[in-house]
Amino acid sequence: MSIETVAVRLGDRTYDILIGAGLVARAGEEISKRLPGIRTAIVTDANVAGSHLAPLVASLDRSGIASTVIALPPGEKTKSFDALQVVVDGILAARLERGDAVIALGGGVIGDLAGFAAGIVRRGMRFVQMPTSLLAQVDSSVGGKTGINSDHGKNLVGVFHQPQLVLADTEVLDTLPAREFTAGYAEIAKYGLIDRPDFFAWLEKNWQEIFAGGPARVQAIAESCRAKADVVARDEYETGDRALLNLGHTFGHALEAATGYDSQRLVHGEGVAIGMALAHRFSSRLNLCSMDDALRVEAHLSAVGLPWRMSDIPGALPDADRLLAYIAQDKKVSRGALTFILTHGVGKAFIARDVASSEVLLFLKENLPG
Amino acid sequence: MSIETVAVRLGDRTYDILIGAGLVARAGEEISKRLPGIRTAIVTDANVAGSHLAPLVASLDRSGIASTVIALPPGEKTKSFDALQVVVDGILAARLERGDAVIALGGGVIGDLAGFAAGIVRRGMRFVQMPTSLLAQVDSSVGGKTGINSDHGKNLVGVFHQPQLVLADTEVLDTLPAREFTAGYAEIAKYGLIDRPDFFAWLEKNWQEIFAGGPARVQAIAESCRAKADVVARDEYETGDRALLNLGHTFGHALEAATGYDSQRLVHGEGVAIGMALAHRFSSRLNLCSMDDALRVEAHLSAVGLPWRMSDIPGALPDADRLLAYIAQDKKVSRGALTFILTHGVGKAFIARDVASSEVLLFLKENLPG
Repeated sequence: MSIETVAVRLGDRTYDILIGAGLVARAGEEISKRLPGIRTAIVTDANVAGSHLAPLVASLDRSGIASTVIALPPGEKTKSFDALQVVVDGILAARLERGDAVIALGGGVIGDLAGFAAGIVRRGMRFVQMPTSLLAQVDSSVGGKTGINSDHGKNLVGVFHQPQLVLADTEVLDTLPAREFTAGYAEIAKYGLIDRPDFFAWLEKNWQEIFAGGPARVQAIAESCRAKADVVARDEYETGDRALLNLGHTFGHALEAATGYDSQRLVHGEGVAIGMALAHRFSSRLNLCSMDDALRVEAHLSAVGLPWRMSDIPGALPDADRLLAYIAQDKKVSRGALTFILTHGVGKAFIARDVASSEVLLFLKENLPG
Repeated sequence: MSIETVAVRLGDRTYDILIGAGLVARAGEEISKRLPGIRTAIVTDANVAGSHLAPLVASLDRSGIASTVIALPPGEKTKSFDALQVVVDGILAARLERGDAVIALGGGVIGDLAGFAAGIVRRGMRFVQMPTSLLAQVDSSVGGKTGINSDHGKNLVGVFHQPQLVLADTEVLDTLPAREFTAGYAEIAKYGLIDRPDFFAWLEKNWQEIFAGGPARVQAIAESCRAKADVVARDEYETGDRALLNLGHTFGHALEAATGYDSQRLVHGEGVAIGMALAHRFSSRLNLCSMDDALRVEAHLSAVGLPWRMSDIPGALPDADRLLAYIAQDKKVSRGALTFILTHGVGKAFIARDVASSEVLLFLKENLPG
C-alpha cells in the first residue's frame, strides 16, 4: 500500500496529510500513533455514514480509541448555527476534553462544521480531517479554514483551526457520483493554473488516469495538497498571498449565487471551472495574458467534462448588471475597483486589487449567452 | 487626567490597556488613533446602555467612527448560543469587514459574548474591550478568553481572541452597586496572593482609598492588569502557568454551582474570596504554608467586607461529598487526584497536580458550617 505524506508547515502546529488507499480502515493505527490515549467524537452525515462509518469505528476500536458518533443530515443546509449547536452539545455530552479529538468524516460541509465545533469547544480541541470527497481532499480539508453559512452569505462565521492530522483515503472516491468527482477536479487544475505550469501540463497528459484511480490519482491529490500547504504556510490567516487560492472563485461564487445555489444547475467546482476560464479570458481581454493561454485552459476543462462557459449552465442567467452586483456583494468595493485573481498565463496568477467594475461589466456583457 | 497604560506583550498581537477616568468620553480619539478608518458595532446590555452608551456614541461620532448598536438583556443568561447568534447577525447586517471592530461595552458577560462573536465573524474581526465592572477591568477583559455557557457548564464554548485595545474607564465604577465593587476587589487581592506579596501588603494598607476612588484605584487596577498580562504573555493558551489565575476558583466554582448560581446568595467574586481563603487554609492544613498566612488572608478579605468562609453564604449548603462532586465535575480527575492552586504563603501560589480527593473531602467536612 503506497501512502503519500505531505507536511503542512506551521511551526508548532505542523501536521501531516496522508493520502492513499485504505486509510479509513487504518485510521485507528495512524491516529493512536500520533495522539496516544485520546477519545474521539466522529462527526459525519447520513450518506457517508452508510459506507464508511462502520469500518472507521472498527479501526478505532482495534486501536483502543473510544468514539461517539454525531450524525447530521447531508447537504449545505447543515452548515448552520443549529447544526453547530448539535455538534457542540454532542461533544460536550460525551465529556471530551481539550486533548481529545473531533474527527470529521465527510465532505466539505462536514469538515467545515466539525472543524468549527472543534475550534470552539473548550476554546479549541484537537481535530482530525477524514475528507471523503475529492473537493474536500484537495481543498477544504487543508489549511484550517472552518465555518458555517449565514443568511448574509456563505462561510461568514467560523475560525481558523488547524487539524492535527488529515487522512485522505483515495479509495472512498470510487463511490462518488461522476459529476461530483469531476467538479472536485476543477480545484486540482486550479493549483496548476495558479503557479505550477508543469503540473498543469502533467494534468493535460494524465487526467484520464486520475479519473480512473490508481497511482496518478494519489499523485494528483498529493501535489494539490502540497500546493495548498505551501500557500497556507506563507499566509495562514489570508492577509496576502492566500487570496491566490480564490482563482476562479470570484466569478464562480457570483454564478453560484445567481443560480440560487441550486446543485442541479451548478455545483461549487463547476462554478470554479467556469470562473477560471473566465478569469483567463478576462485577463486576455485586458492584454495581461495571451488568448492562446485562455483557449488552452478552456480546452482542458472541456476535455475532462467540466463546464467552462456561462452558456454551459442550464436555465436562464441574470443580466450582466445583476451578476456584477453579486460579484460586488462579496467583496470590498472601494471607489468602483474590485479585487480579482487574474493571470499573466498558465501558472502565472496574481492578485489584481484595482480592477475597474466598468471593465468587468463590459466583459460580462460580451460573454453572457443570448 | 492621568491615564495608566499597560502593554500586553503577545508578539504581533501586542495591545494596550488604558486605565483612568473619562475614557468612555474619549474612546473615539483613542480608537481612531490606533485603528484609523474603521466602522464599529457596539455590543452592550440594557443596564449599561442607560448610563454609558450615549457618551460613547457621541465620542465615536466626533472622531468620524460610524457605529451600530446591538443591545442585549443584562445577566448571565445572555452568555448563550441564542445571544451569540443575535450578535453575529447584527454585525453581519451592519456589513462590517474583518478590519472593522466590535466594541464590548459592559461587564464580563458582554465582554465574553462580544469577544466570541468578534472571534468568529469572518473568522476573526478586530475587537475593543470597554469593561464597565471592576471584575471585567481587572480580569475578564485582559487575556483574550471569550465564550458562552452551555447546559454542560460555564464557559465551555469559545475562542482565544485578543482585543486590539482595552479602555478601562475607572469613573464608570462609581455607579456600581457596592456589593459588585467589593466582589470585583477579590480578583485584585488574588494577584497579590499569587505572586506579588508587596502588592498584597500595599492593598492591606490602601484598600480604603481604592474603594473611595482616585489614584489608588487606578493604581490597583493597573497593577492587576500588569499581573494578569504577565501571566498571559507567558502562557496565552493556558497550557501551564496560566492556571495560577485559578487561585480560589476551584472551591469558588464549586460553591457557585452548589448555590445554583443564585446571585442573591453568592456572586463570582465572593466565591473566589471564600475559595482563596479555603485554598490558604487547606495549604496550611497540608503543612504547605503557615496558619498565620491563612489568617492574614482571611483578615484582609473580612476587613474589606468580603465573605471568606462557607458559613458566610446565606442558606443551606450541600454536604462535603456533594461539594467534592462539584469540584471533580469541572476537573480532569485522574486516579482520584485533583489539580488545585495551593500556596507556600502570601504571594507564593503554585499548581498542585496530585491532590488526593480524600484530603479535600476531609478538609471540606472540617470547614462546612453546622
